[in-house]
Amino acid sequence: MRLGRVDIGQRSETVRRANLSALVRGLHDSGPLSRSELVAATGLTRTAIRGLVGELAAAGIVQEAAAVRRGTPGRPSPVVRIAPDAAVVIAVELLVDSLAVAIVGLDGAIDHHERVDRPRDERSVEDVVEHIARMASEMRSRTKAPIVGVGVAVAGVIRRGDGHVAMAPNLGWVDVPFGDRLARALDMDVPVVVANDGDLGALAEHRRGSGVGVDDLLYVSGEVGVGGGVIIAGRPLDGFAGYGGEIGHLPVNPGGAPCRCGAIGCWETEVGEGALLALAGLPPDAGRDGIETVLREAAAGNPVAVASLEHVGRWLAVGLAGLVNILNPQLIVLGSMHGRIYPVIRNTVEAGLSAHALPAPRALVRIVPATLGADAPLIGAAEVALEPVLSDPAGFMARPAPDKRLAGASR
Amino acid sequence: MRLGRVDIGQRSETVRRANLSALVRGLHDSGPLSRSELVAATGLTRTAIRGLVGELAAAGIVQEAAAVRRGTPGRPSPVVRIAPDAAVVIAVELLVDSLAVAIVGLDGAIDHHERVDRPRDERSVEDVVEHIARMASEMRSRTKAPIVGVGVAVAGVIRRGDGHVAMAPNLGWVDVPFGDRLARALDMDVPVVVANDGDLGALAEHRRGSGVGVDDLLYVSGEVGVGGGVIIAGRPLDGFAGYGGEIGHLPVNPGGAPCRCGAIGCWETEVGEGALLALAGLPPDAGRDGIETVLREAAAGNPVAVASLEHVGRWLAVGLAGLVNILNPQLIVLGSMHGRIYPVIRNTVEAGLSAHALPAPRALVRIVPATLGADAPLIGAAEVALEPVLSDPAGFMARPAPDKRLAGASR
Repeated sequence: MRLGRVDIGQRSETVRRANLSALVRGLHDSGPLSRSELVAATGLTRTAIRGLVGELAAAGIVQEAAAVRRGTPGRPSPVVRIAPDAAVVIAVELLVDSLAVAIVGLDGAIDHHERVDRPRDERSVEDVVEHIARMASEMRSRTKAPIVGVGVAVAGVIRRGDGHVAMAPNLGWVDVPFGDRLARALDMDVPVVVANDGDLGALAEHRRGSGVGVDDLLYVSGEVGVGGGVIIAGRPLDGFAGYGGEIGHLPVNPGGAPCRCGAIGCWETEVGEGALLALAGLPPDAGRDGIETVLREAAAGNPVAVASLEHVGRWLAVGLAGLVNILNPQLIVLGSMHGRIYPVIRNTVEAGLSAHALPAPRALVRIVPATLGADAPLIGAAEVALEPVLSDPAGFMARPAPDKRLAGASR
Repeated sequence: MRLGRVDIGQRSETVRRANLSALVRGLHDSGPLSRSELVAATGLTRTAIRGLVGELAAAGIVQEAAAVRRGTPGRPSPVVRIAPDAAVVIAVELLVDSLAVAIVGLDGAIDHHERVDRPRDERSVEDVVEHIARMASEMRSRTKAPIVGVGVAVAGVIRRGDGHVAMAPNLGWVDVPFGDRLARALDMDVPVVVANDGDLGALAEHRRGSGVGVDDLLYVSGEVGVGGGVIIAGRPLDGFAGYGGEIGHLPVNPGGAPCRCGAIGCWETEVGEGALLALAGLPPDAGRDGIETVLREAAAGNPVAVASLEHVGRWLAVGLAGLVNILNPQLIVLGSMHGRIYPVIRNTVEAGLSAHALPAPRALVRIVPATLGADAPLIGAAEVALEPVLSDPAGFMARPAPDKRLAGASR
């Protein structure tokens, strides 16, 4: 039996924690706000805001700065912002052909960022873990802020909780305890959260990209495989174990091609990078450059290139129609390859969606390209790694002092 | 910008309301509980429980009864239960070939229930509204409890909020302001909530059927069309406008048959009642009796009947695989026709699911027949109609006294 638990004995502490979280999350999501804006947004009294801001400022989490005059009359309200060194996370994105590592602040700003090409034969878990640990270690030396977590985006089917990779066909991984191994290699005494890159891209576009303010959103992103993620009622659709959102493996064509996952006619066999390149007569490993070649050829009128893009557009519409019927999203955000080719296939996709989806949900949905570009999953990885501090800044403020040896070394 | 709103000025009232709701919802979901069980389940103190139960008892919402000895030592704790006449709703289910109306109590018990066959030519909105109003009026006379809402399940694409039917292909309705018309005809001064029958079936199985305790659940139910509903993280997947969960219109076979919705090869064209009856050589309107005939023939070894069931089983697996990959449910509940035929096609469905779904989410999902039978959507309709009282019993207790004329008439 599940009953809502509201423990009366702790209520004022619970309310204080919730209010601190609302403030920090608001500043994280929206950027600097005046006290008046905080009052308007939270419904808290001016006195309460003053107390909470004071508490956060004393802990070094927020700063108050002189306001910039905005041409409005009256005395300007000072602006509250997240302090640059309040807390940071290390965000990692592991793709088939590249590896990105960044330091991201509690304010959401990417402070340091490095993306390197990855040899496609670097597939052993040991090599990958070692590569990430090396880059992360170098990144750590560039910040003085407390590191509160590590978030990792991986193109694979990832179990929530322990970052176990059930399957990453494009890396050739099956049942790899990746989260545990990476945590051991990093040896940082902070949580290491591993999640699917499509799920994290969806979260990033929802919080900081094309989907800000949209609570029901579908994110589609094709690289070597087709990934994506779903936000429903403002929350990621994880499912029972965190495997949800594997939209690339929607069966759309029972007479189609075998998929890397072992099934037949998955959506990614018709709309993935591999399908587009093969139809255009390019080698399967031509990657992003190959996509650009197809777009250039199509613009020049090459009928094979045009037909290959149309094929992807038609099948994109079929899968999107199924997802629109199931999920009734307000917005479809196309990232990566699909965002790149969308301007060219727009009419095909829109017409196909109208033909295949139910009229009522179809009429309400808009399709837009992603705005965060290739970094969306990296930004999403930072968001999940920051989540413990965003949900409970009071807990973070009350954390035990760092180990004296480490504290001595870093000062 | 969205910030969590926690208004300090109202906090003790907010906590009281939340605790009253937790108590009433717990008793609604679980049935009678002792005070000790309420203490254990809510984390509230014994004193707090005593106060809250007293308040609810004084308002006539709960009763305390002498406990039944259960063979455990010690003084038995009195049992708290929802009072039978605390509040009721009228639940309605409108299907293509039948209409059901029931009175359902705040305790979830169905007090009065009537299901009548509906002439398949009774399709005009006026006729349907009039039929429902007549049955509801008769039901009202059978209860003395306050009626707090009306919930209606309809096999169609329904807009949340106003019960506008965007499309109900099997009723022949397009863009019908059904919620408004029914509310006018009922003239009862209580909210009338209209929702999709599959969504309500899913909610019912989640709260009171095979899915109790399961937070990620997919419900599939075939009648003339194939409907269903999705529960994610304990909440119905509504989507932006409430159109979510139209799983019958997942495109699974691009080379398939035209669907009633206007698209080609929707899941329901392969796994619906119509497909099974046609493959078995029975008339398309043979309905439930036809399904029973197919099952009987298959049991007797008729190869056409066996093949038609196998066909449905194979395609059922394809669509379920897509839904498992997207939603990662813990449980698939098969209602109506699919629950009925599942024992016969189990091996085909299980094997097909293994062939088409990703191994990780597939390994975690179980398939079970629904336990609430044909009444699941009706029970779900009662649940949504009761929701305002379950979420805020304090608001219900503080409601204005009924109109004196009505109060006089009913006493």
